[in-house]
Amino acid sequence: VDWDKVAKRTVGFSGADIENMLNEAAIHAARGAKKEIDMKDIEEAATKVKLGPEKKRLQSDLDRKMTAYHEAGHAIVNYYSPHLDPVHRISIVSRGMALGFTMAPPEKDRLHETKSRLIEEMAMTMGGRAAEQIIFKEITSGAANDINQATRIARYMVTEFGMSELGPINFGPQTDITEWGKSMYEQQSVSQEMQAIIDKEIKKLIDASYAKALELLKKYRKDLDKVAEELVKKETLEGDDFIAILGGEKKRL
Amino acid sequence: VDWDKVAKRTVGFSGADIENMLNEAAIHAARGAKKEIDMKDIEEAATKVKLGPEKKRLQSDLDRKMTAYHEAGHAIVNYYSPHLDPVHRISIVSRGMALGFTMAPPEKDRLHETKSRLIEEMAMTMGGRAAEQIIFKEITSGAANDINQATRIARYMVTEFGMSELGPINFGPQTDITEWGKSMYEQQSVSQEMQAIIDKEIKKLIDASYAKALELLKKYRKDLDKVAEELVKKETLEGDDFIAILGGEKKRL
Amino acid sequence: VDWDKVAKRTVGFSGADIENMLNEAAIHAARGAKKEIDMKDIEEAATKVKLGPEKKRLQSDLDRKMTAYHEAGHAIVNYYSPHLDPVHRISIVSRGMALGFTMAPPEKDRLHETKSRLIEEMAMTMGGRAAEQIIFKEITSGAANDINQATRIARYMVTEFGMSELGPINFGPQTDITEWGKSMYEQQSVSQEMQAIIDKEIKKLIDASYAKALELLKKYRKDLDKVAEELVKKETLEGDDFIAILGGEKKRL
Amino acid sequence: VDWDKVAKRTVGFSGADIENMLNEAAIHAARGAKKEIDMKDIEEAATKVKLGPEKKRLQSDLDRKMTAYHEAGHAIVNYYSPHLDPVHRISIVSRGMALGFTMAPPEKDRLHETKSRLIEEMAMTMGGRAAEQIIFKEITSGAANDINQATRIARYMVTEFGMSELGPINFGPQTDITEWGKSMYEQQSVSQEMQAIIDKEIKKLIDASYAKALELLKKYRKDLDKVAEELVKKETLEGDDFIAILGGEKKRL
Amino acid sequence: VDWDKVAKRTVGFSGADIENMLNEAAIHAARGAKKEIDMKDIEEAATKVKLGPEKKRLQSDLDRKMTAYHEAGHAIVNYYSPHLDPVHRISIVSRGMALGFTMAPPEKDRLHETKSRLIEEMAMTMGGRAAEQIIFKEITSGAANDINQATRIARYMVTEFGMSELGPINFGPQTDITEWGKSMYEQQSVSQEMQAIIDKEIKKLIDASYAKALELLKKYRKDLDKVAEELVKKETLEGDDFIAILGGEKKRL
Amino acid sequence: VDWDKVAKRTVGFSGADIENMLNEAAIHAARGAKKEIDMKDIEEAATKVKLGPEKKRLQSDLDRKMTAYHEAGHAIVNYYSPHLDPVHRISIVSRGMALGFTMAPPEKDRLHETKSRLIEEMAMTMGGRAAEQIIFKEITSGAANDINQATRIARYMVTEFGMSELGPINFGPQTDITEWGKSMYEQQSVSQEMQAIIDKEIKKLIDASYAKALELLKKYRKDLDKVAEELVKKETLEGDDFIAILGGEKKRL
Repeated sequence: VDWDKVAKRTVGFSGADIENMLNEAAIHAARGAKKEIDMKDIEEAATKVKLGPEKKRLQSDLDRKMTAYHEAGHAIVNYYSPHLDPVHRISIVSRGMALGFTMAPPEKDRLHETKSRLIEEMAMTMGGRAAEQIIFKEITSGAANDINQATRIARYMVTEFGMSELGPINFGPQTDITEWGKSMYEQQSVSQEMQAIIDKEIKKLIDASYAKALELLKKYRKDLDKVAEELVKKETLEGDDFIAILGGEKKRL
Repeated sequence: VDWDKVAKRTVGFSGADIENMLNEAAIHAARGAKKEIDMKDIEEAATKVKLGPEKKRLQSDLDRKMTAYHEAGHAIVNYYSPHLDPVHRISIVSRGMALGFTMAPPEKDRLHETKSRLIEEMAMTMGGRAAEQIIFKEITSGAANDINQATRIARYMVTEFGMSELGPINFGPQTDITEWGKSMYEQQSVSQEMQAIIDKEIKKLIDASYAKALELLKKYRKDLDKVAEELVKKETLEGDDFIAILGGEKKRL
Repeated sequence: VDWDKVAKRTVGFSGADIENMLNEAAIHAARGAKKEIDMKDIEEAATKVKLGPEKKRLQSDLDRKMTAYHEAGHAIVNYYSPHLDPVHRISIVSRGMALGFTMAPPEKDRLHETKSRLIEEMAMTMGGRAAEQIIFKEITSGAANDINQATRIARYMVTEFGMSELGPINFGPQTDITEWGKSMYEQQSVSQEMQAIIDKEIKKLIDASYAKALELLKKYRKDLDKVAEELVKKETLEGDDFIAILGGEKKRL
Repeated sequence: VDWDKVAKRTVGFSGADIENMLNEAAIHAARGAKKEIDMKDIEEAATKVKLGPEKKRLQSDLDRKMTAYHEAGHAIVNYYSPHLDPVHRISIVSRGMALGFTMAPPEKDRLHETKSRLIEEMAMTMGGRAAEQIIFKEITSGAANDINQATRIARYMVTEFGMSELGPINFGPQTDITEWGKSMYEQQSVSQEMQAIIDKEIKKLIDASYAKALELLKKYRKDLDKVAEELVKKETLEGDDFIAILGGEKKRL
Repeated sequence: VDWDKVAKRTVGFSGADIENMLNEAAIHAARGAKKEIDMKDIEEAATKVKLGPEKKRLQSDLDRKMTAYHEAGHAIVNYYSPHLDPVHRISIVSRGMALGFTMAPPEKDRLHETKSRLIEEMAMTMGGRAAEQIIFKEITSGAANDINQATRIARYMVTEFGMSELGPINFGPQTDITEWGKSMYEQQSVSQEMQAIIDKEIKKLIDASYAKALELLKKYRKDLDKVAEELVKKETLEGDDFIAILGGEKKRL
Repeated sequence: VDWDKVAKRTVGFSGADIENMLNEAAIHAARGAKKEIDMKDIEEAATKVKLGPEKKRLQSDLDRKMTAYHEAGHAIVNYYSPHLDPVHRISIVSRGMALGFTMAPPEKDRLHETKSRLIEEMAMTMGGRAAEQIIFKEITSGAANDINQATRIARYMVTEFGMSELGPINFGPQTDITEWGKSMYEQQSVSQEMQAIIDKEIKKLIDASYAKALELLKKYRKDLDKVAEELVKKETLEGDDFIAILGGEKKRL
């Protein structure tokens, strides 16, 4: 598995992103007729690389409030998940197709992706929808990408990483095609019986992560409200602002 | 999910439609040798963009009556569905392949597509067939596109948006092909057991929406008759005409 | 669904057919060195467009009798099916791959294709085979195209038109490929459980239509014999000849 | 269904074959420096078109005897099947990949292919293997093409001609691709439940035809022996020789 | 079925092989500056055509012993199988990818491939692995090609030759593509129910052939030991050497 | 089966690797301006051919410790598996995508790949993950390639080598495509029933190999600790260092 690609899809930064980001920062500095790239250029560039340029949209107050709770949901679940890298920025400014974002970039090269961390990452991914459910008793299509992302992680955990009750067995498609012959490993033959077990293991991981997100957000409802309210006010919260609201840095493992 | 595309398939207007529409309006004004585009040009252009140019057909009175009830069915279900944008125009003038249409364009950018609204949209989509059933005790092939549209929405709700009892899990095909490898995510492997659950959830949503449409149209049968009769008489009803018949603007949420 | 195409496959005429037919009629008139197209040119052209040019074959008397009963079977079921357009011509002159034909073109643009009419059309389609069964206690391969046509109609009714007990749900393949992405809707995923229900609904419609054809032909056996005998004698019966044999125009709805 | 193609695969002659055959006959006559094509040229050409040129092979007496019984098996089943065209020639001279052949060309254009005739044709096709079984208590790979041919006929009878207990329903692949859209009808979706019924109906037809062949050959064992012995002696029997051995022309229906 | 191809895959010689072999023999003779091809050239050429040129490998004594028993296993099963052509040569000299070989070329054109002979051929094919099992209580990957070959024969017997309890029915893929249309016969539709029966019949044939090989080799263990020991000593045994060890020519049917 | 390719994927060296390696060694020597290739050049080249050039990464102490235990796990299972070639080198220096490696190249051409050896190879492959589980009570994605490799071996054992309870039968895809026709053997038809048996046999082999790895590592926990600690200290252990730590050469069979 090319875990780099998995990492890139999370909200973190890979080496390629950093290169791209530095170019963007240089462009941004040049536009401002500055002689040197400063931190503000880099920040702007980093976000643009991940999510595209800012996009102004006319939104109702309710829309803004829903986005704020959705992003705050991601952030609060992150805060109470000790294996996850801390939140770097939260925003409800639209960028590309996204109405908002929560960034928690890896602080160093992640060499061992553990089951414990992936379970927390799934819960954080489900945090947006869980917040919508708790606050608005409503489900929106805005969680579709989160659901997709969580399902992908769960599918990898079950079929490639051996992280479910199915044990250490590989049922993923084989991408190493040239060496073993094309017709052979494009798609492994898997019996219905085994596929049903795989589906159940994926669903168990998903259900557990959503339940975890709901549990954390209900328990820390006050934190959720505070962060969402601040987001509505300020639109973007830096990591330090976030920590200030919650009263201290997150506990790590 | 590119929800823009989903939106485009509904009876609303997207940004691209508006651009297209303005061009059409300019052409229409030019044909009339007018110096400025007026509202009538825009109205005509808007409908043409959505449904194609008007098409004269020889129809029996019964055909016209069936079309009128079909469109009135859509409109009445819309009227009693508080999450839906209000009806803008109803018509039984043939355009392209359609015998008539009911337009309910979004009044502003819809950022959060909720489960509540999608359920009402499915019911409105089923309203045409429900009206035929109630009035003529007959089913026509004219509802085929409505059935297709409702099934698509239901399939999205179940497999992408996590809006069924199956919960927040993704079983749709993966379109993000380049990044994850082509052979991998063209079609996810899903067990028969899970697929059967998906089919049942889709069917439950469909059956519920059709039942809702029947219920509303039976309850508001007099409104249905009045609107259908007016349609047969005038061929096209603007939103204001429609409201006048029903005695007031719809209740919104 | 492009119902125009469905219609074209029936024994009726579409707009495109008419254009084609008029060209053929002009050619036919030109061959006869006539200055104007007369009704005979059009008749010949109409049939040629539908079935190809006449084709002389050496046939036994039994072959001719079997073809005559097959076509008479279609015609008699049509006569006692009140929703169907009346028979325009019946012939046992071979054309293209067909040994004979029964034409019942639509008298006007058919805008609402109803369940009642489609059920009758399936019965008419099965009428040829039903007649063979009743008269010769034998089944021939000559009904293969009829069976194919009836199965297609039944499949549409179940999977696209919502005209079976399965209700208003779409399980057909998606042809709207460009907008929704190619890999997505080429073939919808349907569970075995649902597919088995679909197959049973299709079979129920087929069985019912064949039973209806048998019932009508047994009940009106004398009409069947008279028409078949006339066909053997005259090879082609115009609509008026047919009505004369049966003693009056068919009852319509 | 293009039944012409089905017919061509049987041991009969189609129009195209005849054209081809006449060319071959002309070549054969030219080789012999004859000015006119005589009957011998045509006979040779007819067989060559069907089976390829003669091919000398070293065979044991047992091999020749097995081939003789195999071909005699086809011929005897034909003789006692009243719907089949009579045997024209039987031969154990190798041609192309075939060790021998039994020809029973259609005496006239076959317009109505009946269930009764197809069942007899299947039995005749199984006659070769049935003879091997009865005489040598052995099964050879030489019947593989016969089995394939019989299975094809059975499959057509069940899925296209409506000639099984499944009734008049079509489950074959749709070849009419251009008009109905390519992705749609390449292969119809059929549930496992229905496919299992189809398989059983095909198997029932096969088993019945093999049982029929065994029954006829056991009953007319003396005829079988006489024909096989003559074949070993003379290598090729014309239709008249065959009739002479059996004491008269076959009974027809 | 192109049985020539099946035959070619066995250890026999086809016509094409013989042509190829004669060319090789001529080359071999030319290399030796001989004016005429002698028997030694032909022998060398024959083996080279089948298995590629000799390939020196460093082998342990155990490796050589295992290869010797594997090949002796094939040879002894052949010796006690009355329908099989006799062993022509056995060798443990590596050629191409093979560690050794046992040749039993057909003595004449095989016209009728019987069930009895194919069952014996499967047992002979399994003889190598059976010997490894008996002598070393071990299974090696060296039998993979034998297993593949035996499974192919069994699959043909069941799905093409009608040589299993399933009876004379064809379930193989259809290669006659051009005449019947590509999409149609690439792969026949077979129900799970029937496929499971096919799999079981294939497995029954395989299990029976392996049991037969084990039985023969246990019964004639002394012959097996003697041949294996001679092979280790001399590396290659000609047919006559083999017969001498076993005390006489094999019994044929 | 091209077992050479299987071998290449293990940590051993094939002939092609050796050629490649010698080129690399020559380049390495040239860079160092040496006139002759010495052992150090070859060692460096050998590793580079297998795993790519060294890659410096910033790692935490915990990361280094996890990698050390993972590689030590492979090495210790190897040490107590009598059929496996001995460990040649262990390293936690990153190369290409790998965080470390354990090499156990074949000491001579492996001619007979036995079931006993493959089972031990699977256990060694699982050794990395088993060590992580025992020491850190955690599972990481770093074992994904090991799981994939072990599953491939198991799949080969079951479907090609006849090394499971399913017996000597082939259910792998057929790669010998040209000779038997492309459409035929790309993927064999296998019933769900048989596929479920195959999946269970694969899983049984996997589970047994993982259990074996856990058992050995728990039993020889002290060895595991010592090797891991040395690895953290020295980063790379040559075969002799490894033997010195464990107090003697491994027992072979």
